[in-house]
Amino acid sequence: MVAINTVFAPIENDLLSLNKNLQNMIGARHPVLGAAAEHLFTAGGKRLRPAIVLLCAKTFANNNEISASQRRLAEITEIIHTASLVHDDVLDECSTRRGIKTVHNVFSTKIAILAGDFLFAQSSWYLANLENLQVVKIISKVITDFAEGEVRQGFTRFDLQFPIEDYISKSFYKTGSLIAASCQGAVMLNDAPKEISDAFYMYGRYLGLAFQIIDDILDVVGSSNDLGKPAGSDLSQGNLTAPVLFSIPESIYLAQLIDQEFANSSDIQDALQIIREGCGIQQAKDLASEYLQAAIHCLEIIDNSADIQLLKQLTLNILERVN
Amino acid sequence: MVAINTVFAPIENDLLSLNKNLQNMIGARHPVLGAAAEHLFTAGGKRLRPAIVLLCAKTFANNNEISASQRRLAEITEIIHTASLVHDDVLDECSTRRGIKTVHNVFSTKIAILAGDFLFAQSSWYLANLENLQVVKIISKVITDFAEGEVRQGFTRFDLQFPIEDYISKSFYKTGSLIAASCQGAVMLNDAPKEISDAFYMYGRYLGLAFQIIDDILDVVGSSNDLGKPAGSDLSQGNLTAPVLFSIPESIYLAQLIDQEFANSSDIQDALQIIREGCGIQQAKDLASEYLQAAIHCLEIIDNSADIQLLKQLTLNILERVN
Repeated sequence: MVAINTVFAPIENDLLSLNKNLQNMIGARHPVLGAAAEHLFTAGGKRLRPAIVLLCAKTFANNNEISASQRRLAEITEIIHTASLVHDDVLDECSTRRGIKTVHNVFSTKIAILAGDFLFAQSSWYLANLENLQVVKIISKVITDFAEGEVRQGFTRFDLQFPIEDYISKSFYKTGSLIAASCQGAVMLNDAPKEISDAFYMYGRYLGLAFQIIDDILDVVGSSNDLGKPAGSDLSQGNLTAPVLFSIPESIYLAQLIDQEFANSSDIQDALQIIREGCGIQQAKDLASEYLQAAIHCLEIIDNSADIQLLKQLTLNILERVN
Repeated sequence: MVAINTVFAPIENDLLSLNKNLQNMIGARHPVLGAAAEHLFTAGGKRLRPAIVLLCAKTFANNNEISASQRRLAEITEIIHTASLVHDDVLDECSTRRGIKTVHNVFSTKIAILAGDFLFAQSSWYLANLENLQVVKIISKVITDFAEGEVRQGFTRFDLQFPIEDYISKSFYKTGSLIAASCQGAVMLNDAPKEISDAFYMYGRYLGLAFQIIDDILDVVGSSNDLGKPAGSDLSQGNLTAPVLFSIPESIYLAQLIDQEFANSSDIQDALQIIREGCGIQQAKDLASEYLQAAIHCLEIIDNSADIQLLKQLTLNILERVN
């Protein structure tokens, strides 16, 4: 297995200038929003989404040169993602993320709502200025999908009957849609033919779904230290994810703990232990692995260049996070 | 003076179908968001923004027929406005608006954040589907301007040094920008030449500024009953508007009350009384009146059709609200 750093090496400089640009795009005018943005953008985010966009862009670049608009799309993708995190943290009442305090915790809920609105607005503005109507349309749909995902998550908390299919579609709205559309947009901006841009959409969709499942596995197996937020924090919110849903049929006690919304202080730890000792995590890993294979399969219609191999490597690396 | 109903008569049916469409565009998929949207859209909003868009559209329509995309722009304008109100009410902790409880009060802050995000997202999506890149750009800028306005308002509360020029630019961001861009968009969608579309932008800008000033006068002179929210509610938040800013140099006591952030329960009533008895309100009216004259002047470059006369009538009617 090639390390993630090796996969990112060809775009290392691109990611560095992306970081600089993100600060400039957001922070200039308002000291407090600037501080909130700096807080977010320096918080050691994985920059996975822009890295994927840049790698997709490279596969469809002229003379291997990523274009200015493809770079801008990578930045827009990270801004949209960050905006959604800020509002998500308010909705979920998270107090830490990536090991540091969340915006609404450091500043206030008001600043967090404002900062999220501001970031969404900035992304719409930069998006319109890409001057590519098709890309505007596909990325605008992403923002609708986010809201859809948040709504679905909000109204299905602690729902023991939540079907795995609905978890998948919610995960698409929350994670898959942005990655899918930005992979597609990256090659669209270089006039890729429709069958190629569709393949990149599906690649991103599968990759995003796998990524979400693995994130959800980490929520139940990870230590608070690794996660940068308390272990089981999704679970404690009643956000029932793949490893949990696969574990519920195995344990009536787990179902009871969830049904009682973890009424006692030790309930979350009990639930986590049951999940960790059962087969749900392995089932969730298998599902993620299937999606990653499907993602790699989508890339088969494109000639197997060095850049395509990097994308495939990146895809395989995603699973490494839980192995 | 022609009554506002007479001005709206030629677009009465258009406004009725707009109301129906707004419900369909938002309410379909989620019972709770649907309820929140219904709550908003049936709350007796003045529909002033879409009415202005429709009247502008009529002045530049083929055979006097407003087009489907012009109608859609009127709907988008109302959705963006509503989205901004929902988040504004959370930020300002308003509990009533238009005489009914606000979304975050009836439902919860979470639902209000979600509903606002959802409405903004829907508006971006419908906007992209107008398939007119220029219109997408000008309306996207509006959403950025909103966030800018909110931020400025958030950081200048109770600031006695807040210059009237900054109040004007904040009012542009919060109110003028949307009306300006949607007036411009309405005629752009029917391929108006640049000097005409620019004139409509400036018309909307001046109209929006006047409208904001008059709303701000109503906050200090209106009764809670008329306003559908407590009188002086902007003032009590430290949101210093034109009539207040004009009154501050007249009364050291008013400045003190503001500086102490209305520490005693009777302070707001005292402040309102000082403002009502001084010259600040008249100065604010004069300023609004100047903007309305400037708005009407912008329409002079267009042949004085029956539709243009309606727009001018509407403009004059705005001032009637405080006379």
